[in-house]
Amino acid sequence: MKRSQKLMNYVKSNIHRDVDTVMIWNYENSSTANTFYLSGFRGSCSVLIIQDGSNYVITDSRYFEQVEQESDFVLVKHTSGKLIQTVASFLKTLSAQFIGFEAERLDCKTYGELRHELNAEFIPIDDVLYRMRSIKSEEEVSKIRTASRIAEKAFKDTLGCIKEGVTELEICAELEYRIKKLGGQVGFETLIGSGHNTSKPHVKPTAKKVENGELILFDFGARVDGYCCDITRMVVLGKPSAEIIECYDLVKHSLKRATDEGRAGQIPSQIDKVARHVILQSKYAEHCFKYGLGHGIGLEVHEPPRMGPIFNDPLPVGAVITVEPGIYIPGKFGIRIENDVVVRDDCFEKITDLDEELITI
Amino acid sequence: MKRSQKLMNYVKSNIHRDVDTVMIWNYENSSTANTFYLSGFRGSCSVLIIQDGSNYVITDSRYFEQVEQESDFVLVKHTSGKLIQTVASFLKTLSAQFIGFEAERLDCKTYGELRHELNAEFIPIDDVLYRMRSIKSEEEVSKIRTASRIAEKAFKDTLGCIKEGVTELEICAELEYRIKKLGGQVGFETLIGSGHNTSKPHVKPTAKKVENGELILFDFGARVDGYCCDITRMVVLGKPSAEIIECYDLVKHSLKRATDEGRAGQIPSQIDKVARHVILQSKYAEHCFKYGLGHGIGLEVHEPPRMGPIFNDPLPVGAVITVEPGIYIPGKFGIRIENDVVVRDDCFEKITDLDEELITI
Repeated sequence: MKRSQKLMNYVKSNIHRDVDTVMIWNYENSSTANTFYLSGFRGSCSVLIIQDGSNYVITDSRYFEQVEQESDFVLVKHTSGKLIQTVASFLKTLSAQFIGFEAERLDCKTYGELRHELNAEFIPIDDVLYRMRSIKSEEEVSKIRTASRIAEKAFKDTLGCIKEGVTELEICAELEYRIKKLGGQVGFETLIGSGHNTSKPHVKPTAKKVENGELILFDFGARVDGYCCDITRMVVLGKPSAEIIECYDLVKHSLKRATDEGRAGQIPSQIDKVARHVILQSKYAEHCFKYGLGHGIGLEVHEPPRMGPIFNDPLPVGAVITVEPGIYIPGKFGIRIENDVVVRDDCFEKITDLDEELITI
Repeated sequence: MKRSQKLMNYVKSNIHRDVDTVMIWNYENSSTANTFYLSGFRGSCSVLIIQDGSNYVITDSRYFEQVEQESDFVLVKHTSGKLIQTVASFLKTLSAQFIGFEAERLDCKTYGELRHELNAEFIPIDDVLYRMRSIKSEEEVSKIRTASRIAEKAFKDTLGCIKEGVTELEICAELEYRIKKLGGQVGFETLIGSGHNTSKPHVKPTAKKVENGELILFDFGARVDGYCCDITRMVVLGKPSAEIIECYDLVKHSLKRATDEGRAGQIPSQIDKVARHVILQSKYAEHCFKYGLGHGIGLEVHEPPRMGPIFNDPLPVGAVITVEPGIYIPGKFGIRIENDVVVRDDCFEKITDLDEELITI
């Protein structure tokens, strides 16, 4: 069954049986994940209109040719004036009465204008698409696996460029170049930090040069057919300090404990607790990671399901998630190891295929 | 005067004199431009709270250290539960009564929850920040100029990699690698297309190989200190057809006419008309560009002011905009030439410093 029909059925059965239309807005610069997931269309700005058996994509002239190549949705041309006017007129011609929409994505100005223009009821359907997307088909898993192989090879090939005096930005350029030459896209904004910069969990690469004895954090991914992987590994240039080794071993153990615990039906907050416990029991307790242990990946680098202290819905079979404990000592260094896994009936099956040891150069 | 204070003054003078608080939401994956513009903070998810003389950034543990390094806004830690709860509680402690907010950015779910939690009035202030950002200081222009020099050098250096059989994706990898090695970031998703792919104005690079006689479209930019440039040039591999030469000359002439027309106070729709007229009078009239002639650039690659048939506010001094006419013949080829210019009292001053001739290899 087509995803758009599945969505419509789910909405009618679980949210509001009268829904006759689903509307998915995609602004310039906003995530195109839901639009692509439903329609295959990759343009940067569009509105999908879905009814039983009829699917439309409203977009502007930049994309008229592209829609027909990428999607079996019917193109509705937005040619002049404001997009909201084209959308409102079209919804009127369809006699849309109960319109499902993403309340967490639709801005309140557009919402106000649509309500003013249309004599219809608006029904939030926010979690439905995330729920559908959180369970991956084997085909989707396979794309994430392909992305992982590319990212891993690019990472290994980049290690040869690391030496004293190279900047974080240069390392980033080398890694992303290799991902692209291997046929992938860069999955998300690559995070690379060295030395004391690693203590910031979301460190961006700078012109800082790598020095002897320093840790280098690589948080990177490739994207293939829209699907991305998300991997973190640590490299040390020269001889690591005893403290680095001690922290690294704790993080590695935390990762192992969480991974061993994982399988479908487990409660994310419990797995998070198991991973956190390893570090909280050590003398580095105050530097234990403050974020959730992991998150779903797929068309977006952060998507449900999430693993953290406040997430209590059992993990579904087929989810693909990260496991990424860490220790961060401000002003000194940070260490994170991150793998991607598929949630199976009886285990977390690793997608990431890189060694988990500290890499020394 | 600080930008946050300028914003507050503008809002009070022009929108609603009782506004005591401005709130800028920045979701994961949404544009960080306004947040960075006001606070200097570059994290991916935060809420700015601005009052007279007091500025705060609410964000999570990933960014606690980073806020203090990048911004003089006071850090408010979001440590548990939902972000909206932290924001609502904080706004209560500040006794916010009249809250300016971005109605085109705030999602309607969050808006509903905030209204429910707070006994306050919400005042849309959408265009204010765009208005401020659309007029660049010389320092901002200089960053766009630096980004242009990097992008142009990277482009010229990439031409050496182009030969029959190279894929669009490989060309893209080479170009972006060079931008990064030269110290820039990639400004936006690089558009590269060859042959018939060029007829789509927003063509993304594919595994298609470049063949002899084909056009290659490069729409690319670098980013420096947050500011990007946006350039399009056409390359032909081998000998161009007479039709390609004819269309190229038309587009180049259209660009020249628009550029000659440009200066502060001119009406965007008029300049658009001048550029369009050149092509509409030719035998390629039906293939004339359908989008607006240009758009502002800066922290975002598309921002006000815009040039197109529906934009009638006079161009302000200090705006930085693109001029990018084109001809697109579906199934055959497309041609666009795009320059960046600063709007001066008496002219469009070119930032882009690349030759405007068709490049043959």
